Amino acid sequence: LPFLKKYKELQKVVGKGIYGEPRTVLFAEIFEECDKFLSTLEIEDLISKVPGKEYFAFRMGGKSSRAVNKELFCRGMGGWDLLRECLSNNDLSPMSKTDLERTLYTLAISFCACIDIVKERDQQTPGTFFGYLVAYLLHWRLGVEPKTSIKIMSVEGEADVNLQTDLIYDLGLKKQKFHVPVKTSSRERAIMLWAHQKLLDGAYGIERYMGTPVLLAETKLDKKNREVVEICLPDQWKVYQLYIARLKRVYYLDMPTPYLRLQGEFPPIMVKSFADLFSEWDDLMPV
Amino acid sequence: LPFLKKYKELQKVVGKGIYGEPRTVLFAEIFEECDKFLSTLEIEDLISKVPGKEYFAFRMGGKSSRAVNKELFCRGMGGWDLLRECLSNNDLSPMSKTDLERTLYTLAISFCACIDIVKERDQQTPGTFFGYLVAYLLHWRLGVEPKTSIKIMSVEGEADVNLQTDLIYDLGLKKQKFHVPVKTSSRERAIMLWAHQKLLDGAYGIERYMGTPVLLAETKLDKKNREVVEICLPDQWKVYQLYIARLKRVYYLDMPTPYLRLQGEFPPIMVKSFADLFSEWDDLMPV
Repeated sequence: LPFLKKYKELQKVVGKGIYGEPRTVLFAEIFEECDKFLSTLEIEDLISKVPGKEYFAFRMGGKSSRAVNKELFCRGMGGWDLLRECLSNNDLSPMSKTDLERTLYTLAISFCACIDIVKERDQQTPGTFFGYLVAYLLHWRLGVEPKTSIKIMSVEGEADVNLQTDLIYDLGLKKQKFHVPVKTSSRERAIMLWAHQKLLDGAYGIERYMGTPVLLAETKLDKKNREVVEICLPDQWKVYQLYIARLKRVYYLDMPTPYLRLQGEFPPIMVKSFADLFSEWDDLMPV
Repeated sequence: LPFLKKYKELQKVVGKGIYGEPRTVLFAEIFEECDKFLSTLEIEDLISKVPGKEYFAFRMGGKSSRAVNKELFCRGMGGWDLLRECLSNNDLSPMSKTDLERTLYTLAISFCACIDIVKERDQQTPGTFFGYLVAYLLHWRLGVEPKTSIKIMSVEGEADVNLQTDLIYDLGLKKQKFHVPVKTSSRERAIMLWAHQKLLDGAYGIERYMGTPVLLAETKLDKKNREVVEICLPDQWKVYQLYIARLKRVYYLDMPTPYLRLQGEFPPIMVKSFADLFSEWDDLMPV
């Protein structure tokens, strides 16, 4: 399958730490191949138990993709072409926030849906791809390359521990550093986001690394009854934010509505659309 | 299948909060049925990449169980009968530590292996059963029933958050309370153990609840090349114990050797055999 072949090439380019044009071209080819493949599939309307949102799944034979948000998903490469142009001009003003949200969501979910159809219970490949995509977009926005591990000081006489992480950005002298966990969903493992923040706070000082996770969605499709639910635990997140550590932002591509209210409560948890990152990133730095 | 039927009865008894004889009888029946079922299966020697330990898997047709530790697994119900007697007399001295370790391990792994064979990729049923087994043994040892949720104080004007947990033991006025997470393995999710401890420390004061997780094993069987590895991250555990929170004990039924050294280092992490719990539990309480 062409999108799998291109994905393997992308893995090589990522492994070599190559950014810029080669990576852009590969993403473009992957999106095009995914778009072609998805256009050959059947669409199944799902029963949405998520207030205000509708979902569908792609189908081929007996196999079905994960839930796809109807309002956010767009056919074709139009949004991607515009986004590429905007980002290379460093000016996103030609895109409305809605266009940006749809484009980012479509880029991410298309590949995940293709893998759902062609592989058996493969959560790892969509997760890895989503990590590559977010790293690629952030590299474009920030101009620096991430590290994917961090040294944590152990006790005297022992070597530092090299902790594998998602994306770590160091923007330079006297500037804030960022830790960006990237997950397709958090569900009942959300506490891990706060635990990693607490670990970095402990080892480097509070908020020396700002935690700004990027998540795709919190939807879950029941394979039998074809219902989509959104697994949200806002009250638990509040006690994590109170008692474990403070996350600066939580970005979603398919924003779960129950988390929106957390912005205005105490302790505030700024759960936002991933599209917001592109406009507000510079303000996150207190320098 | 008889062991599944008995397991469903056990679920009902657990749901009703019934301890004592009805639960003991059901466990006895489940172990007997598992032992019968397993004795009809083929044995496959696995390639052990774990220094000093050998493993096998049960097989039926094309299906295979998880890895089973050869030295710890015992056929028959002898160990269980003796354990029952010892615990009802509140005197474990007739059992050597090795007998106790083998019996506890065999009880836990037998049911897990049966489920591996008769179900498809079912991790939940073995995990739930293991939780029931540990709760049952601790109830016998401690004489109190666990709660499986805890109230965490949220901010003023909002209801407390009712956090679902594994086992919470309150031994009474002026005594220490215990939080016992129960998992078949921790792997790359081990940080969640420390995160929950930090949350309880934050909400109730440091070590008001002592964290003493019980884990079955850290083995992983590669389905294709039939190799068993043990996934251990002792250096990461050290920085969790340094920077996130302090766990009082980590108990294993199949103790991973790489964690043993953590007992004698700083910060100490007392990773021990689950059998040790039965003799040392009273000493854990600083009252």
